[in-house]
Amino acid sequence: MTTAIQKEMKHLAKEAQKASKVLAVTSTEVKNRLLRRMAEALKKNRRALLRANRKDLALASRKGSSKAFLDRLLLDEKGIQGMAESLLTIARLNDPVGEVIQMSRRPSGLMIGKIRVPLGVIAIIYESRPNVTSDSAGLCLKAGNAVILKGGSEASASNQAITHLLQQLLKKEGIPPAAISLVRHAGHDAVRALLREDQFISLVIPRGGESLIREVARLSKIPVIKHYKGICHVYVDSECDLNMAESIAMNAKVQRPATCNAMETLLVHEEVAPRFLPPLIHRLRDVGVEIRGCDRTRKLVKGLKRATEKDWRSEYLDLILSVRIVKDLSEAIAHITEYGSMHTDTIVTENHDHAMRFLREVDSACVFVNASTRMSDGGVFGMGAEIGISTEKLHARGPMGLTELTSYKFIGLGNGQIRT
Amino acid sequence: MTTAIQKEMKHLAKEAQKASKVLAVTSTEVKNRLLRRMAEALKKNRRALLRANRKDLALASRKGSSKAFLDRLLLDEKGIQGMAESLLTIARLNDPVGEVIQMSRRPSGLMIGKIRVPLGVIAIIYESRPNVTSDSAGLCLKAGNAVILKGGSEASASNQAITHLLQQLLKKEGIPPAAISLVRHAGHDAVRALLREDQFISLVIPRGGESLIREVARLSKIPVIKHYKGICHVYVDSECDLNMAESIAMNAKVQRPATCNAMETLLVHEEVAPRFLPPLIHRLRDVGVEIRGCDRTRKLVKGLKRATEKDWRSEYLDLILSVRIVKDLSEAIAHITEYGSMHTDTIVTENHDHAMRFLREVDSACVFVNASTRMSDGGVFGMGAEIGISTEKLHARGPMGLTELTSYKFIGLGNGQIRT
Repeated sequence: MTTAIQKEMKHLAKEAQKASKVLAVTSTEVKNRLLRRMAEALKKNRRALLRANRKDLALASRKGSSKAFLDRLLLDEKGIQGMAESLLTIARLNDPVGEVIQMSRRPSGLMIGKIRVPLGVIAIIYESRPNVTSDSAGLCLKAGNAVILKGGSEASASNQAITHLLQQLLKKEGIPPAAISLVRHAGHDAVRALLREDQFISLVIPRGGESLIREVARLSKIPVIKHYKGICHVYVDSECDLNMAESIAMNAKVQRPATCNAMETLLVHEEVAPRFLPPLIHRLRDVGVEIRGCDRTRKLVKGLKRATEKDWRSEYLDLILSVRIVKDLSEAIAHITEYGSMHTDTIVTENHDHAMRFLREVDSACVFVNASTRMSDGGVFGMGAEIGISTEKLHARGPMGLTELTSYKFIGLGNGQIRT
Repeated sequence: MTTAIQKEMKHLAKEAQKASKVLAVTSTEVKNRLLRRMAEALKKNRRALLRANRKDLALASRKGSSKAFLDRLLLDEKGIQGMAESLLTIARLNDPVGEVIQMSRRPSGLMIGKIRVPLGVIAIIYESRPNVTSDSAGLCLKAGNAVILKGGSEASASNQAITHLLQQLLKKEGIPPAAISLVRHAGHDAVRALLREDQFISLVIPRGGESLIREVARLSKIPVIKHYKGICHVYVDSECDLNMAESIAMNAKVQRPATCNAMETLLVHEEVAPRFLPPLIHRLRDVGVEIRGCDRTRKLVKGLKRATEKDWRSEYLDLILSVRIVKDLSEAIAHITEYGSMHTDTIVTENHDHAMRFLREVDSACVFVNASTRMSDGGVFGMGAEIGISTEKLHARGPMGLTELTSYKFIGLGNGQIRT
């Protein structure tokens, strides 16, 4: 039996698909103008947005939410400014739609090429941060896709206020407001219903905690692009610049420990460990990092907690680091293969062969030589903006920008070619 | 409760994944040598292959299978020669693995690029043609992937004979024979069990009839790339070379009607229909094509069967053609959008604006101007060989060659870059 929510979600998805067909043939000029107007509208209406956000905050705080949770939910003047700037950045990026990515003349004289086209409808399922609402809407719009936004119920007033503003501007440009749709139902029934609409929705991107992502992947009939977590490693090789290794390790752990590209485990070659680890661990502890070491590490530096099997598999997202001494590059790669999450891993080495082997054999979305894992980011990579990170192998892997929100079609330009 | 078949399929998938890790780092030289030896082995052992195939044929014919079915199942000397040649062709193609597709220097000095890597394990689920066994194995091998083959039970002796030969050669090169695995169980339980192993299998490609493909898509927890059918259109525009239009229409319908890129529906602009259609329909009927026309077509040419709503949605795969007269390009595009299968559609026109609009607005995997729909083919496109055709939008669309059997990872080459 179809429930009211199922009916409503089907309708929402269907309308989004209709809107996507309009967006797919909307010019770059109109899309960019819209993005700039959206940025303006967010700034102009910041009082209304702050008011809506305060409603969300009050409710969440009455429910006894944690400070970290309230932090993520909070929208302030600076946050709104940031959302507006993101939209302006997206307006300045090249439009991926219509780009011819390969075109060659075949022996028959037929010109065959690929041209980028929008995916259609993209559903984004996310948790509290309200800036995801406008960022996702902007990126999907620029790539010619309709978007269905399902934010956390805790941010519902904020998300409604934001999408209402954006939809008003769509209407003014003659684009169906369903091009930026918001699911207003709280709870799982709406998500479950939405994830069945594979006839209308091309792609689902869940953003948030691992349990949310696993649930979406389990329920979805629509392809899901996701990453569960980031257990990122830095491997310090026997032949390397130890100053560089220290700087990379500090940056990867400390600069922003709550991000998915922060380092969680440090692997150190046994030859350099006695020189490298004691001063590094000292520096890390000085800035408040808790170290959990393997037995060999704990012999080098006294008073460390022992890293357990569970530690190697943990994404701390916090000022905690597990450290292991390995006997060679092979053991380092084996550790990463066994315990990593295929997100981002780095080798610090001056040995060319070791670098090449690490690049080849570590099967992660981003593999670096002599750079901090924190460099794994759409902005740093030159994508301009990022809708998420994928540890999948199909379609898109690593940071996903505008291009990854498109598909392609083959075009063939002939003068009467037939098959013989 | 886990059944014996579920256990067996999990084991098979797990072993295939282990083998895929070996293949992923196998050199191009070794892969090509293997492919050449496989081609040789097929030819050298053709008697054994023919014998196995005769067993399959005898069983199928006792079961009262149709002539078309037996034709697809048949392997003769020429067929074996063709399989061997396919493998040699694959050996000559560029290895996609290791190709750096983009590499640029970021402001920080970090060199960021993408490098192609294998997908891992690919499952191919298909029906009777035994050549799919060696073609798929060859393509997956070249792209560094392990393959799990699940052919139709009717071809089981043929498929076992072929894979046995290929596995012997893998062993000789020190590659685990699980790199080319064959599911020996007949029936749906094995397929159902296999499609749950998303932990080990990256991609499923079903090849065969629509019902097989729908069933695979419904059951799979693993991403599926597929096309259900090819309802391909040729639209003959008001401004066009009618001789070219006739040649394209004849080729698209008659040259090989049983393929998915054959034309099923011809759309003709009303201005040229009176001149164009009667002689074309005459020629088509002369070579045995049954025409089903819209009312206006039936006024132009007497004695035609009426095309029903069902005809517009039919993939005949046979010498049958539905014909509709449209009043303009918009009506042609609307027809294709409503009834097409997003496979391949062609406009015949001399008008540049019409060509551009058709290319932009027809949302199919392959959109052509002035070329037969039959040109929609991996070989014709220069891919060298094709593992299937996708009407999906994620990952790969249109003919899929070696490149589409790969993913990529980001690589970053630095000299100490950290995030600030």
